[in-house]
Amino acid sequence: MKKDLIVFDTPPYVESCASVVGRHEHEGLLGECFDIHGDDDRFGMSTWEKAEEEMQRMALNTALAKAKLKSEDLDAIFAGDLINQCTCSAQGLLTADVPFFGIYGACSTAAEGLILASMLVDAGHFSRAAVVTSSHNCSSERQFRFPLEYGGQRTPTSQWTVTGAGAFIVSSAGGAVRITEALPGKTVDMGVCDANNMGAAMAPAAYDTLSRYFKQSGNAPDDFDMIITGDLGAEGISILSEMCAEHGMNCSGKLYDCGVHIYDIKGQDMHSGGSGCGCFASVTASYIIPRIAKGEMKSVLAMATGALMSPLSVQQGESIIGIAHLLRIDGTVK
Amino acid sequence: MKKDLIVFDTPPYVESCASVVGRHEHEGLLGECFDIHGDDDRFGMSTWEKAEEEMQRMALNTALAKAKLKSEDLDAIFAGDLINQCTCSAQGLLTADVPFFGIYGACSTAAEGLILASMLVDAGHFSRAAVVTSSHNCSSERQFRFPLEYGGQRTPTSQWTVTGAGAFIVSSAGGAVRITEALPGKTVDMGVCDANNMGAAMAPAAYDTLSRYFKQSGNAPDDFDMIITGDLGAEGISILSEMCAEHGMNCSGKLYDCGVHIYDIKGQDMHSGGSGCGCFASVTASYIIPRIAKGEMKSVLAMATGALMSPLSVQQGESIIGIAHLLRIDGTVK
Repeated sequence: MKKDLIVFDTPPYVESCASVVGRHEHEGLLGECFDIHGDDDRFGMSTWEKAEEEMQRMALNTALAKAKLKSEDLDAIFAGDLINQCTCSAQGLLTADVPFFGIYGACSTAAEGLILASMLVDAGHFSRAAVVTSSHNCSSERQFRFPLEYGGQRTPTSQWTVTGAGAFIVSSAGGAVRITEALPGKTVDMGVCDANNMGAAMAPAAYDTLSRYFKQSGNAPDDFDMIITGDLGAEGISILSEMCAEHGMNCSGKLYDCGVHIYDIKGQDMHSGGSGCGCFASVTASYIIPRIAKGEMKSVLAMATGALMSPLSVQQGESIIGIAHLLRIDGTVK
Repeated sequence: MKKDLIVFDTPPYVESCASVVGRHEHEGLLGECFDIHGDDDRFGMSTWEKAEEEMQRMALNTALAKAKLKSEDLDAIFAGDLINQCTCSAQGLLTADVPFFGIYGACSTAAEGLILASMLVDAGHFSRAAVVTSSHNCSSERQFRFPLEYGGQRTPTSQWTVTGAGAFIVSSAGGAVRITEALPGKTVDMGVCDANNMGAAMAPAAYDTLSRYFKQSGNAPDDFDMIITGDLGAEGISILSEMCAEHGMNCSGKLYDCGVHIYDIKGQDMHSGGSGCGCFASVTASYIIPRIAKGEMKSVLAMATGALMSPLSVQQGESIIGIAHLLRIDGTVK
């Protein structure tokens, strides 16, 4: 088997990161962790899309401020979102006068950006790059599903798009957290056509990436404090657990899905849990990386999952392609 | 001024490239150059989107075949298109079992991918990566403008989305063409809100990138056989020429816009010319790079331009953000 695993010679640091979320996310299980929250999900803007742009801007500026940096200190920005033609990223980050790389990996976009930024900082092409991604429940609902006013009913396996943005500054400058390995995802199609069950479409991609990682690295699940998935949701994480068990990969007690844990999914009636480019990004920026920085965790595998589809591709009968990009994130505290 | 110019230590080669186009493109000025053309723009498929997917698949497979490679020989694919959530790339390249990076830079996507692939091959992270982008007139028209059946009238400054796909294999293996420098684009907003005049929105971004390049490299327009722009069209290229002249940058006789030259724009009634992710990609893959490989040109600057907008962002009154990614492509023939 061909080796896709990337082991960094000079592992880049996560110099800083930050998150911005909406009301439901602030009322969820990790509510106290997020840097900034809005009470009406509008962030002072006249449209949901502009609110999402504002979240991107705030997330990047907060991450920069934490590290006492300005946007001029960045060599590049990698950014993406779920909105058609990724306009929220381009508009939201317009004030930063920095080379801009638009990326799209659905809900896996943050991990895709972190892999690209890490490879290019490791290589010395950039000394500091930002990764910013977002999603907004209201901009996504009307684009992917129904106008909010319609009050469409949701199926039990459906997920709730997180209103949130996360920003990461990847650099060679130093810090308490390093990205030491990366494994980019491959597209995986298992024929799932139900747009209300993204977890089922993404779980096989998560398994594909995870099994490639353990085979190629020689590591085992027990070598890590946590194996984080982006937003498989309750349905997807149960499929992944089953696939791991069937193939003798013992991940029990290690799997942590950002979509399941960002909300009190029963209490908040979130069905299968959270999803969206802002889910993995906000949870990783505000809960996972700070815990590694404090030394509460030594080493985690962080894998964001994406469902590559559009309303049109589903209407045309195409199946939903899954992808999962993986990073190994280690603390530098001994 | 901060230096963004990337000069490759070990400039990667364009080991192979290929293009697939539709009927109008085959009937255009460069018709004989393209590797494959379809007569009905359907490529045997039942929807325009599936036809676009098929073009991506054919372009990649043709580029691989020319270099006697299989998809397993690739370390990564960078791919993108204009269709919502970039589904044509994910679906079209599904059969290639290769790490997949989705990118989005509107019509600049091919150059964005070439920059990323070149940096990562130069760094040794990948030894061989593919870049594939596409656009299809019929899938774009109904998504961005009107259903074809409506027969909407087009304004004189509007552009015709190219039905085409281009694929490039960037590698360390050798060849007659190398990518020696790269300058990633920044987002530029000059307040243009007319979705039927993309050229005006993109020209300032092209000028921004070009002027940064000449300042940072110390080179002058006369050092190059051609300065290629992706798809400014007749309107945009005239704005860029004016901006260059005003700032004392003498590009006269050097500028070559793929959108202007892919069609006989008067004879084919193409208004301002071609556009789309497939415009720069197909012209560069089938006309520019082969000429460099043959030694007919020694050195060119190739700059793909993108208009970062969506129908929704325009309806909401947001202006159209331009971006232009630049590559320097040199022949190895002495």
